Order: sequence, then structure tokens, then C-alpha cells
Amino acid sequence: MAAARRAFAELGKKVVCVGRNFGKHAAEMGEAVPTEPLLFLKPTSSYIFDGSTLRIPKAVTELHHEVELGVVMKHRVQQLSETASREEIMASVDGYVLAYDMTARCLQSKAKKAGLPWSVAKGYDGFCPVSDMVDAAAVSDPQQLQLRCYVDEQLRQDGSTADMIFDVPHLIQYISNIFTLEAGDVILTGTPDGVGPVQAGQVMRVSSRALPVPPRWSLVACH
Amino acid sequence: MAAARRAFAELGKKVVCVGRNFGKHAAEMGEAVPTEPLLFLKPTSSYIFDGSTLRIPKAVTELHHEVELGVVMKHRVQQLSETASREEIMASVDGYVLAYDMTARCLQSKAKKAGLPWSVAKGYDGFCPVSDMVDAAAVSDPQQLQLRCYVDEQLRQDGSTADMIFDVPHLIQYISNIFTLEAGDVILTGTPDGVGPVQAGQVMRVSSRALPVPPRWSLVACH
Ligand SMILES: [Mg+2]
Ligand SMILES: [Mg+2]
Ligand SMILES: [Mg+2]
Repeated sequence: MAAARRAFAELGKKVVCVGRNFGKHAAEMGEAVPTEPLLFLKPTSSYIFDGSTLRIPKAVTELHHEVELGVVMKHRVQQLSETASREEIMASVDGYVLAYDMTARCLQSKAKKAGLPWSVAKGYDGFCPVSDMVDAAAVSDPQQLQLRCYVDEQLRQDGSTADMIFDVPHLIQYISNIFTLEAGDVILTGTPDGVGPVQAGQVMRVSSRALPVPPRWSLVACH
Repeated sequence: MAAARRAFAELGKKVVCVGRNFGKHAAEMGEAVPTEPLLFLKPTSSYIFDGSTLRIPKAVTELHHEVELGVVMKHRVQQLSETASREEIMASVDGYVLAYDMTARCLQSKAKKAGLPWSVAKGYDGFCPVSDMVDAAAVSDPQQLQLRCYVDEQLRQDGSTADMIFDVPHLIQYISNIFTLEAGDVILTGTPDGVGPVQAGQVMRVSSRALPVPPRWSLVACH
């Protein structure tokens, strides 16, 4: 609950999300595995913290959970070379969060068919439930983390960051050549398989050995 | 040049862009006029100010200028009612900028065909050349502004904000029900017709009676 562990949400400017970064999730969506990271943006206005309520917008008839590891940037990183060392890249990481890349699958499907942006389908207020930050020093290997999503205490997603197609240093290096990353910015690194719908009245939580206290969020319908 | 007139770029968290908000531009893109605002996001890391250089990324073979009016928010605005008055809505505006929604048309065309996000095509570092802010009090009617784009002193776009399909108060009200708007956030309100390619070695500038000093940006290729 310490304010410092939520400081990224005030300080940061953007959430850079990675799509289809787990083979089994790409397959369940009927999509090919990408040959380079597939990026999109969520606004920081979509953050909600532990104990908050996600208000499901009226326009959203199918809301999906996607549990993801988030990487919080410690300082500005710009145009990292492909030859940058893993150590040099990882020194730019302040810590990690677990988060949901909530997705209005109904709106995203329409956008995909029409060749339109994903921003609304991914970016409504409340569409980024996020945990407090765990210091990078407390995470020995970000590629060995459980990613579990429970809805009403039923296990819906049970993945591991070991299965990422592009790992954390690769993503930071790649993104830094498109969008300058700044202190407090968050990279959501993609979801494992098992995504599915949630509804008003349900409670979502994430679980991972990385997080001492699993955060939870309840869902209500907007009227 | 006063720092206060660029404060939005540090304070703000997002750039909410509106696509196809001018009928003739939708037509030149071969697209229908939307029935509600078409939204996408650019990151604030894409801002560059007057006199800066836009480095054209290696991956970008066709870069287009889209000159647009930007609305700078004065304070947080959330879920404005459809019955909110024009005065109430416009009280949330701090001022205006002229900006370019630079677009990697090559990447955007591929994204549209593949049903993928527009974020990279729209969001590279430097893809939002932006003027200093003009106070709202100095702009008597934001729907009566010239929008002119010159490339190497050749007039490329010559529009008026009078031709917007959704006007500024409509956009603020609509967006506030999707993304909470915060102080310093910018809304880019769409481009008139006449978009087209720019290349390394050229100089872009915007012109409008609203801006006492027309800002300019030069373009170079990345190596
Ligand atoms: Mg998008
Ligand atoms: Mg995702
Ligand atoms: Mg535009």
C-alpha cells in the first residue's frame, strides 16, 4: 500500500502493451505468432489499484481478462542498440507489477475487421487493473514468474513468463527504438492462454509468487 | 518560447487523436465518414517543438503530414453528461496548439489490412510536431481557425476547423466517457484534406491566424 509502490502511475506517461507474446495465446486467438513485437498503447487513465471496482462500460458486451507481467521503467531509455547487454538494459527497470490488459473483445473484433485502431477496446477507464510495484531487486528472474488469473476464485489463466516469445530485455530494446521510454512508464508483456469473459458481480485476482499480497478487483456494470 | 506555453508536454499523459473528422479527408483516404468519433492514441514521447528535427525512422518509407488543431486540457474531466452545456465543457480547455499527426502511411496501411493496432504507425518519437500553446482566452472561436500546412513553403493543406464533423465540445464530452482527460492532455481533432508525403531534407511549417509565430520542423533520415 505504500505510496512509493504506486508512484509509477502518477509519474509514468504511457503503458506500452505487447500483443501475442505467448504462442498458446496467439493460437487461441486464431492468430500467427508475430515475427517482431506487436505493440499498442493503453492510457495511464486506465489504471485501477487493488480493491478498486472496474465499471464495465455500457458499450462493452464482452470484456476479457488478460493477466500480464508489467515492467516499470526507472529512467528514460531511448534507442538502445541491438548490441546493448542484458545487464545494461535491465538496469533501466525499477520493478514489476502484475496487471490485467482488460480488453473489450467485442469492440476489438469489430476494429480488427474494419482495420481500425484498438485504442478504445483496450483503453477505457479501469481497463488496466494493476498491483503495487515489486522492486526489481526482489525479483531474481523476471522470466521465471507464475501468471495466474482467478475469477471468483476459479483458476482461469495459469502461465509462466518463461513462455514469452520476446523476453523483457528484448522488448525494452525494441520499444526504445520506437517510443522513448520514460521513468514510470509500464510495459505490459503479453498474456498467456486462457483469456475469457468476465461479468458484473465477479471478482478478479492475480496471483504470483512475486507478489506477497494478491490484489483483487470487483466488477460492476455501468448504468 | 515561454516554458509555460510548453508545460502541457511535461504535465500531460496522453494525446487522444480523432481520425476522419473532416469529410474531404475521409474521402481522400477512401473511407466513409464515421458516425461517432474515431479515436486513437499517440504517446507524449512523440512531441517535438518548433525548430526541432524529425528523424524519419528507417522502417518508414512513406511519412505523411496531417495538420491538426490540438486542444489542451486545463483540468481533469471525466464522464461529462450529454446534457453538459458548451460553456461547462469549454471551461476545461486551457488553450490550443497546432500540431502534426505524423503518420507512417506505409505501416498504417499494413496494420489496417492485418487488423492490427495503429500505435506504431502513429507514435514514433517525433511524430507529433507541436506548437507552443495559445491561451483559450485568445481564441474567440476554435471552430473558425485556419489550418495550413506548408512543405518547403509550398501550400499542401488549407482547411478550416469550421469543417470538423464533430466539434471541440462534442469531442471532449465523448472522449471523457472513454478516457478520463487530465490536465495537459491534448486532443488532436483531425486533419483536413491534402495529406501527403514528406521526405528527408524538407521543412514543414504550420500557419494559422491563431499563432503569432508559425513554428517549423525540419526532416532528416535516420541512419
Ligand atoms: Mg491503436
Ligand atoms: Mg494483452
Ligand atoms: Mg490525424
